[in-house]
Amino acid sequence: MNKAFMLLEPGPVVLVTTVDGEQKNVMTISWHACLNFMPQFALVTGAWNYSYEALMKNRECVIAVPTADLAETVVRIGSCSGTDTDKFKTFGLTPVSAKSVKAPLIKECLANVECCVTDYIEKHNIFILDAVRAWTDVERKERRTFHAVGDGTFIVDGERLNYRKIMEAKLPFGV
Amino acid sequence: MNKAFMLLEPGPVVLVTTVDGEQKNVMTISWHACLNFMPQFALVTGAWNYSYEALMKNRECVIAVPTADLAETVVRIGSCSGTDTDKFKTFGLTPVSAKSVKAPLIKECLANVECCVTDYIEKHNIFILDAVRAWTDVERKERRTFHAVGDGTFIVDGERLNYRKIMEAKLPFGV
Repeated sequence: MNKAFMLLEPGPVVLVTTVDGEQKNVMTISWHACLNFMPQFALVTGAWNYSYEALMKNRECVIAVPTADLAETVVRIGSCSGTDTDKFKTFGLTPVSAKSVKAPLIKECLANVECCVTDYIEKHNIFILDAVRAWTDVERKERRTFHAVGDGTFIVDGERLNYRKIMEAKLPFGV
Repeated sequence: MNKAFMLLEPGPVVLVTTVDGEQKNVMTISWHACLNFMPQFALVTGAWNYSYEALMKNRECVIAVPTADLAETVVRIGSCSGTDTDKFKTFGLTPVSAKSVKAPLIKECLANVECCVTDYIEKHNIFILDAVRAWTDVERKERRTFHAVGDGTFIVDGERLNYRKIMEAKLPFGV
């Protein structure tokens, strides 16, 4: 769990799953931030979003991190609403039971973080999420995540730079 | 200004400048999120950070977006403190006067966003920033930003995907 912040720190587009009774839903979002190394995350959404009600009512969700091979699906998930679409069925996502929350993990994603909603800052539409469990698919070949630009284009992860030597003293765990 | 959210939406590592009296400072941060299209941003930092005092006192800053050619410098900026280092001088950054705030723009960066601090959520260490003016260096050749992983490695922007057709109805402005 102490490395789970690393799943969101690079700022990838993520999927957030919720469940309300029998109804599972999933949304696409890239407005999120790390808050600390517990980790807690900030997730920006509000009443205009269909998932908002489930988040407020059931106080839990799963943040799933998709990779570049899923980009078009993720965009399509973000372009329709759970009000009239069963997104798991429509987009061929496989829900997997989580351990600590009722919201499902997504099998097709690189990583999944089970989260509890512990606060909501209404004035700024910020959900505070406490990560309670994290999963990574270590066997997945495609591991490049992707980032929303906001104009309908997306940037896939490229080259990796290593500055561990410089940062050694500041890293939250050994390198 | 209506496209300024696009500078942070992809989740790049950014520099944040502040000024307190005569003393300019700059910090490296990747814990931030878009809040809306005005745009407002959330920036996560607190009293442990040297820039915190200037942010609280003067209620303004500049978010500067560096590119891959500056990555090592940006990491080094994040690995020392303004308490004992004049970072602009030490790292050869050129401060440029902003128009609406006293904190300086950074000439070497791809883009700069002048911001006012309009709220601070102490419980979660979240600064709310209102962007008031944005600048982009249209002539800069290196335009790839980079993203922190959290373990001392960084991911540079790679391939760009275009899903404008799918997203057309949801984009905040014409495509």
